[in-house]
Amino acid sequence: MKGHGKESVILQSSERIDDLLTHELRIIQSPEVFSFSMDAVLLARFATVPAKGRIMDLCTGNGAIPLLLSTRTRAVIEGLEIQPRLADMACRSVALNGLEGRVRIHEGDLKEFEPDADRPFYELITVNPPYMPLQAGEPKLSEHQALARHELACTLEDVIVRSARWLRTGGKLAMVHRASRLGDIIALMRAYRVEPKRIRLVHPRIGTEANMVLIEAVRDGKPDVRILPPLIVYNEGNTYCQELMDIYYGESPQLKDGSHGDQ
Amino acid sequence: MKGHGKESVILQSSERIDDLLTHELRIIQSPEVFSFSMDAVLLARFATVPAKGRIMDLCTGNGAIPLLLSTRTRAVIEGLEIQPRLADMACRSVALNGLEGRVRIHEGDLKEFEPDADRPFYELITVNPPYMPLQAGEPKLSEHQALARHELACTLEDVIVRSARWLRTGGKLAMVHRASRLGDIIALMRAYRVEPKRIRLVHPRIGTEANMVLIEAVRDGKPDVRILPPLIVYNEGNTYCQELMDIYYGESPQLKDGSHGDQ
Repeated sequence: MKGHGKESVILQSSERIDDLLTHELRIIQSPEVFSFSMDAVLLARFATVPAKGRIMDLCTGNGAIPLLLSTRTRAVIEGLEIQPRLADMACRSVALNGLEGRVRIHEGDLKEFEPDADRPFYELITVNPPYMPLQAGEPKLSEHQALARHELACTLEDVIVRSARWLRTGGKLAMVHRASRLGDIIALMRAYRVEPKRIRLVHPRIGTEANMVLIEAVRDGKPDVRILPPLIVYNEGNTYCQELMDIYYGESPQLKDGSHGDQ
Repeated sequence: MKGHGKESVILQSSERIDDLLTHELRIIQSPEVFSFSMDAVLLARFATVPAKGRIMDLCTGNGAIPLLLSTRTRAVIEGLEIQPRLADMACRSVALNGLEGRVRIHEGDLKEFEPDADRPFYELITVNPPYMPLQAGEPKLSEHQALARHELACTLEDVIVRSARWLRTGGKLAMVHRASRLGDIIALMRAYRVEPKRIRLVHPRIGTEANMVLIEAVRDGKPDVRILPPLIVYNEGNTYCQELMDIYYGESPQLKDGSHGDQ
C-alpha cells in the first residue's frame, strides 16, 4: 500500500502535510485546528509496544501516535477521536501513508464507544489526553483547540475508567500528561486497578522542574513502580539532547532487530 | 547549653560518637543497632521548615533528623521512636549537643501516641519510615534493624493516617522513601487528604533509575504537584555531586539569612 503521495489526498483549508520525521511518515496538520507535539512523539517511543494484537490510541487527534506506533509493531492499531474534523484528518493521513490495512480511525466519544464485541480487549492503550482540568479557567481557544486541551469532552477519570475496562489483564496503559497532574493520575489509576509501573519525568533543562510525565500502568499489576532516568530535553544552549535527536532524526530500530522500544 | 562534650555522655556497648557533618553536630551511633543514612540528611534538607511552632519526626531512630532540623529553625522539635534502645540513643545525642531545650524525644508506638492535648497539631511532620512491605520476604536482620527497615511495627498507612490527624490544615508532611513505593505513597496521601505538592527523585547516577523519592504533602492542599529537578548523587567517577558536597561539608545558611531551605 505504500506509495500514496501528496497528490492522492485532498487538503482542507489551512491544512498542510508535514513530515513525521521518522520512516518517511507524513501527517496532515492545521495550525488553526490541531498539530501534534513532542508529547505524542515521546509517548509513541516510551510505550511498551506488543509485537501483535490490538492497540488503541484514545484522544488520537490527527492520528500522530497511531502513525508513529505503526513503525514499531505489526499489531492492529485503532485511534478514537471525538472531533469529526480531526478524525477526518487522521483518516486521510492513514491513507496518505498507505496504512489503511493496519490503522483504523474511529470518530466518536470514548464515553459511548464500544470495542468490537468479538475481541473486546486491547494489549495496549495509549493516550495524550486533554491536559487542563476545567476549573483551570475558561479556555480562550478555538473550539477545536479547547476540546483537545481542556477536559471539556472527557476527564482524566473518563480516560482511566475506559482504559481499565478495555485492557486485558496484564495489558498496558501508556499516558503522557502534565507533570503537575501526577497525583491525580496515580490516584485514579490505583482506584481503577491499573497499576503504575514505569514513570519518566521530562524536564526542559538540567536544573528545571519537570513539565511532562510519561507513565505506563498495567491492568491488575502489582504495586511497584520504576522511575526511569529523567529526560532532559535541551542541552545547555538551545539544541535538543542526543536522545531527542535520535528520536527525531535517527532510524527507529524496532522492526529491524525485533526489540520493542524504550524499556 | 552548647559545649557538652563526649565525656558527658555514657556510651553503651558497640556505640560510638560520629559527626553529623554540619554545625558541629554529633550523634551517637551503633553499627549493630542503627546508623543514620543519607536518606535522613536529604530529608532534613528537603523539608520546608517552619520558622517556629512545632515539628514531629516519626520513626526517628537515633534522632538524626531532629538534630539536623535544629540548625534550620527555632521551632520545638519532637521525635517519636518505638525502640527503647534507639530512643535512648537519641535522647543522649540531644544532650550531647546541648539541645534539651528545643528537641524532645518520645519513646512510644505511633499507633498509640497522642500529642499534647493543649497543642495537638504540628506545622511539619517528617518521616523516614521502614521501607520494606512485609510481603517482601522474611527479614534476616537483627530485631533492631528489622524494625527500622521493615513494616513490622507500623505500615506506610499507619504513618500517613497519624500524620493526617496530627497536622494542622496547611501543615506539611515530608517523607523519604524507596522510589518504587511512589504509587503507594501518593495513593495513601490522597486517601487521607494530605496532598502531594513537591516531589524530588534521587538517582544514584546519570542514566540510572531513581532509588529514593523525597515527597512533601500539605494537609488539605489543592491537587497540583511540582516535580523538582532530579538529584543525581554521584558524578561520573565515584565523587559526590556538588549539591551533596555542599550539604555534607558546606555551612547551612538558613538561620543566617532567614530563608527556609531547599525550595
